Amino acid sequence: MREKMMVMLDARKEEMIEIRRHLHAHPELSYQEEETAAYIANFYQGKEVTLETNVGGNGVVVTIAGGKAGEILALRADFDALPIEEETGLSFASKNKGTMHACGHDAHTAYLMVLADCLIELKAEIPGIIKIVHQHAEEAPPGGAKYILESGILDDVDHIVGIHVMPEYPVGTVAYRSGAAMAGGTQFKIIIKGIGGHASTPHKANDAIVAGSYFVTVLQTVISRRLDLFEVGVVTVGSFEGRGSFNTIKDTVTIEGDIRYMKQATFDSLNKEVMHLVKGLEEMFAVQTTMTLEEGCPPVTNDPELTSSVVDYLKNGLDDYLNEVVEAPMQAANEDFSYYSQKIPSCFFFVGCRSQREKDYYTNHHPKFDIDEEAIMVAAKAVGDVVCGYFALD
Amino acid sequence: MREKMMVMLDARKEEMIEIRRHLHAHPELSYQEEETAAYIANFYQGKEVTLETNVGGNGVVVTIAGGKAGEILALRADFDALPIEEETGLSFASKNKGTMHACGHDAHTAYLMVLADCLIELKAEIPGIIKIVHQHAEEAPPGGAKYILESGILDDVDHIVGIHVMPEYPVGTVAYRSGAAMAGGTQFKIIIKGIGGHASTPHKANDAIVAGSYFVTVLQTVISRRLDLFEVGVVTVGSFEGRGSFNTIKDTVTIEGDIRYMKQATFDSLNKEVMHLVKGLEEMFAVQTTMTLEEGCPPVTNDPELTSSVVDYLKNGLDDYLNEVVEAPMQAANEDFSYYSQKIPSCFFFVGCRSQREKDYYTNHHPKFDIDEEAIMVAAKAVGDVVCGYFALD
Amino acid sequence: MREKMMVMLDARKEEMIEIRRHLHAHPELSYQEEETAAYIANFYQGKEVTLETNVGGNGVVVTIAGGKAGEILALRADFDALPIEEETGLSFASKNKGTMHACGHDAHTAYLMVLADCLIELKAEIPGIIKIVHQHAEEAPPGGAKYILESGILDDVDHIVGIHVMPEYPVGTVAYRSGAAMAGGTQFKIIIKGIGGHASTPHKANDAIVAGSYFVTVLQTVISRRLDLFEVGVVTVGSFEGRGSFNTIKDTVTIEGDIRYMKQATFDSLNKEVMHLVKGLEEMFAVQTTMTLEEGCPPVTNDPELTSSVVDYLKNGLDDYLNEVVEAPMQAANEDFSYYSQKIPSCFFFVGCRSQREKDYYTNHHPKFDIDEEAIMVAAKAVGDVVCGYFALD
Amino acid sequence: MREKMMVMLDARKEEMIEIRRHLHAHPELSYQEEETAAYIANFYQGKEVTLETNVGGNGVVVTIAGGKAGEILALRADFDALPIEEETGLSFASKNKGTMHACGHDAHTAYLMVLADCLIELKAEIPGIIKIVHQHAEEAPPGGAKYILESGILDDVDHIVGIHVMPEYPVGTVAYRSGAAMAGGTQFKIIIKGIGGHASTPHKANDAIVAGSYFVTVLQTVISRRLDLFEVGVVTVGSFEGRGSFNTIKDTVTIEGDIRYMKQATFDSLNKEVMHLVKGLEEMFAVQTTMTLEEGCPPVTNDPELTSSVVDYLKNGLDDYLNEVVEAPMQAANEDFSYYSQKIPSCFFFVGCRSQREKDYYTNHHPKFDIDEEAIMVAAKAVGDVVCGYFALD
Repeated sequence: MREKMMVMLDARKEEMIEIRRHLHAHPELSYQEEETAAYIANFYQGKEVTLETNVGGNGVVVTIAGGKAGEILALRADFDALPIEEETGLSFASKNKGTMHACGHDAHTAYLMVLADCLIELKAEIPGIIKIVHQHAEEAPPGGAKYILESGILDDVDHIVGIHVMPEYPVGTVAYRSGAAMAGGTQFKIIIKGIGGHASTPHKANDAIVAGSYFVTVLQTVISRRLDLFEVGVVTVGSFEGRGSFNTIKDTVTIEGDIRYMKQATFDSLNKEVMHLVKGLEEMFAVQTTMTLEEGCPPVTNDPELTSSVVDYLKNGLDDYLNEVVEAPMQAANEDFSYYSQKIPSCFFFVGCRSQREKDYYTNHHPKFDIDEEAIMVAAKAVGDVVCGYFALD
Repeated sequence: MREKMMVMLDARKEEMIEIRRHLHAHPELSYQEEETAAYIANFYQGKEVTLETNVGGNGVVVTIAGGKAGEILALRADFDALPIEEETGLSFASKNKGTMHACGHDAHTAYLMVLADCLIELKAEIPGIIKIVHQHAEEAPPGGAKYILESGILDDVDHIVGIHVMPEYPVGTVAYRSGAAMAGGTQFKIIIKGIGGHASTPHKANDAIVAGSYFVTVLQTVISRRLDLFEVGVVTVGSFEGRGSFNTIKDTVTIEGDIRYMKQATFDSLNKEVMHLVKGLEEMFAVQTTMTLEEGCPPVTNDPELTSSVVDYLKNGLDDYLNEVVEAPMQAANEDFSYYSQKIPSCFFFVGCRSQREKDYYTNHHPKFDIDEEAIMVAAKAVGDVVCGYFALD
Repeated sequence: MREKMMVMLDARKEEMIEIRRHLHAHPELSYQEEETAAYIANFYQGKEVTLETNVGGNGVVVTIAGGKAGEILALRADFDALPIEEETGLSFASKNKGTMHACGHDAHTAYLMVLADCLIELKAEIPGIIKIVHQHAEEAPPGGAKYILESGILDDVDHIVGIHVMPEYPVGTVAYRSGAAMAGGTQFKIIIKGIGGHASTPHKANDAIVAGSYFVTVLQTVISRRLDLFEVGVVTVGSFEGRGSFNTIKDTVTIEGDIRYMKQATFDSLNKEVMHLVKGLEEMFAVQTTMTLEEGCPPVTNDPELTSSVVDYLKNGLDDYLNEVVEAPMQAANEDFSYYSQKIPSCFFFVGCRSQREKDYYTNHHPKFDIDEEAIMVAAKAVGDVVCGYFALD
Repeated sequence: MREKMMVMLDARKEEMIEIRRHLHAHPELSYQEEETAAYIANFYQGKEVTLETNVGGNGVVVTIAGGKAGEILALRADFDALPIEEETGLSFASKNKGTMHACGHDAHTAYLMVLADCLIELKAEIPGIIKIVHQHAEEAPPGGAKYILESGILDDVDHIVGIHVMPEYPVGTVAYRSGAAMAGGTQFKIIIKGIGGHASTPHKANDAIVAGSYFVTVLQTVISRRLDLFEVGVVTVGSFEGRGSFNTIKDTVTIEGDIRYMKQATFDSLNKEVMHLVKGLEEMFAVQTTMTLEEGCPPVTNDPELTSSVVDYLKNGLDDYLNEVVEAPMQAANEDFSYYSQKIPSCFFFVGCRSQREKDYYTNHHPKFDIDEEAIMVAAKAVGDVVCGYFALD
């Protein structure tokens, strides 16, 4: 079947590019991707699949039942865009001012639609079920992945696979990472309430700026002294709001920041340390504090067994559409695929999208971000190979 | 002459109170006291004095030439009001919404106008010159005192005396302090510029919040370790502006604060230490900084010799209109009389204005601040006694 | 009587100097002043006084009963020396190697012995009792004053007066200060116990050096933010014992230091703040702490009424043996006269001992410290004037 | 040849254990291993090898020339012991009080002597040269490896292989890590010189304890904010020597510590940051500083290509003497094999030595550390397999 699939994909290269360009020209922000969802759903109309729309929001899930019973494999592509004003100058640049597919979700969706269609045609040969997950709202917390999972539609899935295009690698390279692959993040907000006063009578006040400043300095020890040096974590204070008047002692400051980590246990441990510091601060400065957390995505943790298999399947593409399959370093970025990875053995890997002729590139989320469109075909074939390998189809 | 003066003052008690109440009902903000200045100037119209208006702004200076040549003594009272919404419920409460004589300048002006008028009547007996300084804009930097001095009108003055009503003391008490009596203050603003970045890549950024926080902690050593323990000084950071997003490393923070001191040399020394810290911060955190100062009033420093004499003169009022003449502690508040005290041997003292029947009181600048109007007469007689003592008039 | 006393004192100038030189040549350390005590006691043998030795240790108290009943006035001079190797090169330099009268106690004792002897001769005229207190062990805590008080021998005393020679002032100047005059001090010791470990696994340890260092930085706020700017206080960490190996995380550090203050209430407040910091540190760094205090001398607080009288009495010496009577600034040094001042209305004042021809001088406790011996007579006459004034003897 | 080698090794199991026990009973400290070196050299006497003693100190290098020309492979085992008082209670426990083979070097040496002897017997079949490196002084800087390299004796070596027994793994497990495998470390010493003084006059001193404490707090930012979160590094202050008196401001403190890292570039970057902090501290506190570094071992960095091959060779032992070949995490410990790894493509791997029946174990350097002696044979066969694989001998 692999041979047939590859021929079919090659034949639909133009179509993939057209889909990608259509999506690129019509980006929609997270949770507002109604036209995109309709466009995708329309594509599957009349095909021999179970088509479900409005899954967990604007999600579209297409179930391809194979010729025989077997495992259920999900393939996921995200389709929302970013609040960025495009500066690429492309002929098919965004027509929605201030919104841009600056993260490559257009390419993800394009490859997966065409690959899904090929798999539909070949489904008689597939000994199992494939669920095509067109996911909305990857860019904005809490993330479409969370809602799609909560819908229950993936409860029976055995494994899930996703990709992201990455300009750090040239077209022809795919990169994988077993285990912890992308960081989780949790936002914190700490309000420190002292007692205001006049600059001439500090002894009658509890200076919240002084308390807050010492807090920031002590906070450094969470990473420097309390984290295993082989673990990954970072604590950032991104906001210290203590605006006041030069001769008035400030009564309250608000500190906001972000903890990033590759393991949930790392977060638990760092968070516990931060809470000790906050409590100690109360005692030291006679201030009152409130600390609130807003959990973001957990880390993306790829299943070692599945990842090992995926790497083997991908190697079938070497000397063909792939030049190399390499191990990727851990990524500090977040990705809501992590919610799937918490529930379902998963593999999320990276597909190079930089032109092989270029060294420089704009990173994801840059207003000039663009991809070499050859990468779309590589993505389709690579995920196709994963499907073939997964179902042991030659 | 003293006897005659006291009789004259007693006879004009009602008038003093009327003037005070008129001023209280018609307060004007610093630098905007045009009607008040006109009201004062009008009072002196047709009297045998040299009347100068618009001195250094809205200042009014009245020169009373005595019967013989001699020393020149200035008496100063301020007449501006504050941007405070009055809450006293007095029948003569402010008619100018949001503006209030909440610092007693109405009483200062009332006593001095009537006292001046008595002195004008008695001037033949005075062996010297008295300059009555009705000063505007005491409450707002840089202060009317500075401008009046710059006008040159006080260049020939030998000594200057002023008072402030003070509710900490009951009516019948006057309080003096030789040497440093009221604090000077200087405002500082420090901009710390690092390099912004994303929470996932702190090593590529220079975190301005972290640099600023360490700065605040190190700043504590300026007072705790670098100031003679018998000197008086305080450094407050009243504003730490570092508002940002939880997952973005802040590129810039702005710190504003205030240094207070009883001697100019203390400020010079503290300021030098702060500058060392700022420079060291640059080196430590690879940040760029700019530091700007806005000098406020210097300390009020009373001339020991004059103050000693004033105390002797005041003691003449004991068993008469005064119950006690006490030494006052240093005051952390600012007063632009300090500009005079830098140039001219001066004495600035405090006149109790709390009702003798009360223990509690509202402090100056409180929306319910009020005085026992007996204090106006005490002020008039006390300063009158200083005049008599100064010119050795029995 | 004053006249007679002055004549008597003038006649015994050589003797005073001899006594001082004898004592200077034979200094003894605190609590070991047995020969000095014997020398003093011997001086009073056979005189019409009550002589008590071994008072609270090596103290010698001589009670001179006047001709009439009346108030009891104590005069105190200390007589111990310091563990300093003398470098003056004087002909009567210390014969006890490593021990030196480097604080002028030799002069204190010399003047008081001769003055006492004069008063004994004149005692019939004295309407009251004089207790001459020759005190041991002023230089070493807890101080002889404490033990002499505890002996009960001063229980009936109405007032106590003492002096100290001071090279900051020339001979002929005496300096007084009403109220808080010399600092009190309390020593603290804080043991911070974390958990040791290896430099490669900080997350398994609680680094006591890091906790201790943050403690020292936070401690700065006790003075900079928690003390009234018009109060006097200082907190010093004089010892940070954290010696260890470069690659081992230290489990324990010991911090020792000193709090100085002019009022007991200041100490109470500062100490409370330090205890908050210590407790907060436990929470922040999961360390265990123990804090112990060793109280030193309280502040010397002169009774305002007595001091005012003493100043008046001293002014009788002007144009005679005194050039000026000035107000002294507060002193950061400790003096165990403070124990008396806690129990008995007291006045402790300073007698200039610098040669009038010199500007430079060696401070007390310097190995080259010396006095202009004219100061001994000034001390005798000044205290003599206090006695005369106190008992209203012309 | 592999077959023959394995049979030979099996036959000499008792001998390996005897050698190990002999060495264990006669441990010698680093740089003092003269008897151990003589014992090793004696073993090779009369064999067909080039035997070189006193190589870079007490090192012994045995060159086995194969039957044909080819690559040169070095095998290294260390033989020094530690200054630890043994507490194992073994029948062959240390006879040298206070010295112990608590790190397994006895086992390293035992396996390599017997393996070398087998290779000598089989050398005709080897197409190349094997250098057996019996290294002294691994435990004490700068390390015997450095001196052996400097001797030039390894200049012609193509690859070098070493092992360490590790109780974290059971017998039958070997663990490898490509690239950075064990940490490098550099010791630093910073002397901070302020100006001493008395606790009563902090403004005249520069308090070295305060400066040093702030330094320690600022130092935390080196790891928390200045290191890529995916890089590995740690900075520890292990010693803060600031012992002094409670009432004296300390003039000097000495801070000693340790930087650990997995890449030389990490050290360079961290060190640069520390130097900025030290320089900034000078400016902030007007102190003088001197900073000295003593470089320890660099990181052990295994050559990826050689390591990949070694893993393949080791897999030949599976289902035979090995149960598994696993990837090891990075180790924070130092190992002077790192010097070889800087110059020669190398592979250093770990041989499990914990009894398979036990879960608990004493770590290396513990006074009760012991190994399951089966591990010696595993080591011999594993390294034997590496030799066979390296020279492509079946």
